[in-house]
Amino acid sequence: MPASVLESLVISNTTKIVLLVLDGLGDLPNAERAWQTPLEAARTPNLDAIAPLSALGRVLPVGPGITPGSGPGHLGLFGYDPVETTVGRGVLEALGAGMELKPGDVAARANFCTLDSAGIVTDRRAGRIPSETCAKLVALLKEKAARFEDVDIILEPGKGHRFVAVLRGPGLGGEVSDADPHKEGKAIPAAHAMVSGAANEKTARIINAFMQRAAEVLANEHPANAALARGFSARPHFPGYRERFQLRAAAIAAYPMYRGVAQLAGMDLFVPGDSPADAFAVAKQKWNDYDFFFVHVKGTDMAGEDGDFEGKKSVIETVDAALPQLLALNPDVLCITGDHSTPTPVKGHSWHPVPALIHGKWCFADGSPRFHEKACRTGSFSGLASKDLMAVLLANAGRLDKYGA
Amino acid sequence: MPASVLESLVISNTTKIVLLVLDGLGDLPNAERAWQTPLEAARTPNLDAIAPLSALGRVLPVGPGITPGSGPGHLGLFGYDPVETTVGRGVLEALGAGMELKPGDVAARANFCTLDSAGIVTDRRAGRIPSETCAKLVALLKEKAARFEDVDIILEPGKGHRFVAVLRGPGLGGEVSDADPHKEGKAIPAAHAMVSGAANEKTARIINAFMQRAAEVLANEHPANAALARGFSARPHFPGYRERFQLRAAAIAAYPMYRGVAQLAGMDLFVPGDSPADAFAVAKQKWNDYDFFFVHVKGTDMAGEDGDFEGKKSVIETVDAALPQLLALNPDVLCITGDHSTPTPVKGHSWHPVPALIHGKWCFADGSPRFHEKACRTGSFSGLASKDLMAVLLANAGRLDKYGA
Repeated sequence: MPASVLESLVISNTTKIVLLVLDGLGDLPNAERAWQTPLEAARTPNLDAIAPLSALGRVLPVGPGITPGSGPGHLGLFGYDPVETTVGRGVLEALGAGMELKPGDVAARANFCTLDSAGIVTDRRAGRIPSETCAKLVALLKEKAARFEDVDIILEPGKGHRFVAVLRGPGLGGEVSDADPHKEGKAIPAAHAMVSGAANEKTARIINAFMQRAAEVLANEHPANAALARGFSARPHFPGYRERFQLRAAAIAAYPMYRGVAQLAGMDLFVPGDSPADAFAVAKQKWNDYDFFFVHVKGTDMAGEDGDFEGKKSVIETVDAALPQLLALNPDVLCITGDHSTPTPVKGHSWHPVPALIHGKWCFADGSPRFHEKACRTGSFSGLASKDLMAVLLANAGRLDKYGA
Repeated sequence: MPASVLESLVISNTTKIVLLVLDGLGDLPNAERAWQTPLEAARTPNLDAIAPLSALGRVLPVGPGITPGSGPGHLGLFGYDPVETTVGRGVLEALGAGMELKPGDVAARANFCTLDSAGIVTDRRAGRIPSETCAKLVALLKEKAARFEDVDIILEPGKGHRFVAVLRGPGLGGEVSDADPHKEGKAIPAAHAMVSGAANEKTARIINAFMQRAAEVLANEHPANAALARGFSARPHFPGYRERFQLRAAAIAAYPMYRGVAQLAGMDLFVPGDSPADAFAVAKQKWNDYDFFFVHVKGTDMAGEDGDFEGKKSVIETVDAALPQLLALNPDVLCITGDHSTPTPVKGHSWHPVPALIHGKWCFADGSPRFHEKACRTGSFSGLASKDLMAVLLANAGRLDKYGA
């Protein structure tokens, strides 16, 4: 179904939709835990109460066998094709650092490195300097390398040797090659336009000026005496929730990266406290002002990355314990899923489909006693592409007109 | 997921993947066998041992309702879109006859026919002459019609009245109409270029010269006194496994057709003895030299074509008995499936999805006690397009990088 057809069917009403994303929710049956998954092993009385009245299924974030990053994972859930709608590395990094991006901005991932006297990169990570040193050096660059021509350079320090650079000014393009040799023993190459045109050429010129100035400013700062930059990308522009779905959308997420992707979809951003209960409290507070609530819980993914079965189970139990707060708001449609799987045995994102639950008066109650990966395998909508999930949520909310007579 | 995106994610490691294809594996529940399928009725202790630790599913070779030939069936399993990646009939026939095709070759299906004195085709099958006569007549043509202009005509006799013709020489095209009236009571039409251009015109000219010479040479060979040729096609060129997937791939298949399709995918070819144990022994012998092993078992399809339930069950049991040999090699990922279904009641290829099993440490153990069509219906990946199977196998082998940040 092309997006334009879907959007032509959207109608407005007063229903409310909640999309609760437990990051990295999906997992694998664990041989050492009687072949249960963390979601299966968790004590979840509140989920168990709504499971039989819900449609269960599994969503496929990008495609079979494809392990999504957080950007494509969320874009899919938000109803954007994560293959057609690409977001550059620099942009994701800037969003992840909590930087606001305006239309026309170009962002890059950057880091400090070590050059020898001949200008050869001898350490691409500048001896992994501590974050405090990085912050101090970024402050120095902010002072001494803040503007070239009519373009402002906005910098944000990251962890260790890393930082993010955003270029803001008229007529910039994002299709520019890396100012990074990608290996040691080589000089830093000048950035150049990868697609010819004044905008990309201007970005390359500004970046090369910045790189040169940075090396001058940092000349005596051993080991971090120069900078590298890569993954240049322009803030993408695609139609947001109001335009596409006639939804006033709120994103409630403690981590900047997820607010960043939500911002690209035109959602208003809210920063809750760290617990699921905190996030649900923000939803309650904003309940009358929005039609759609994206609530993000990070802990499931972090425990998955750590290979921590008990930790992941425990985060799920914390969500379950707070769930009555959310249910008390009586959302017309509640969807609980993840942006991808982060199985504890894999200790990282994976390609496995993600369990999903849709609760609403017309969802098709599957009658499953519980919500977990195995129940979802045989549920109502097993195999749904995550980019199509929003259509199902809109339909359940009575927000899609009939197609054809 | 476009192939180019998938290929951009491929990473290399030392894992090994085995794709064991039981040709025509899928079947139907049989009313006279307590509604069991041959796979279900077979005694398969070794498959039963790995089934609970495997992800089960069903793969769809081409599309819903579409019955694939062996070419599209295997191309799909190999990760090529069987609709976009077409292989001409002549090429498949030549590969099936065990002929080697070089880039630039054009192949055609051919057969002997009977002409009356006015040049009208009176029998398109030349009275179904025996294969021995066919071989004798092909030998005659090899002697008397071996070369036209700078093009060699390479012939291979087939069954009954059939043979295969390959044209090898510079500047040939494959888009040429059939030199075959497709019905009796008509003269043999001259071949002509279906897309204008020197290459197709040259092929047509050579073919017409060959056809005329054949009729002269065969003039006294009643009833096979002329030849027909159709399905002209050039050896297709598409990127192979090394280029697409960074895989050194071995094809182990007793039948030429399957080696032929594997050859198009850039696999190295090995001819085992007839039994599954023979094929597995070749895998063992070549284990250190390859990353990917395509092992083909023909017997399941042959029994299916014969409508022989017991025979199909028995071939499956033979595979099961030899399976420990394969498992002893400790493949990181083992996939067992078919290129299509050949249900015994249908006595031919069919459109039914094909049961599939993926065994590996991150496969998602479905916990099913057995591997058969019914268990696969509710497995982890029911409904997977066969062209997407390779992505899942690569993912399970840790050979795909994350998509996006």
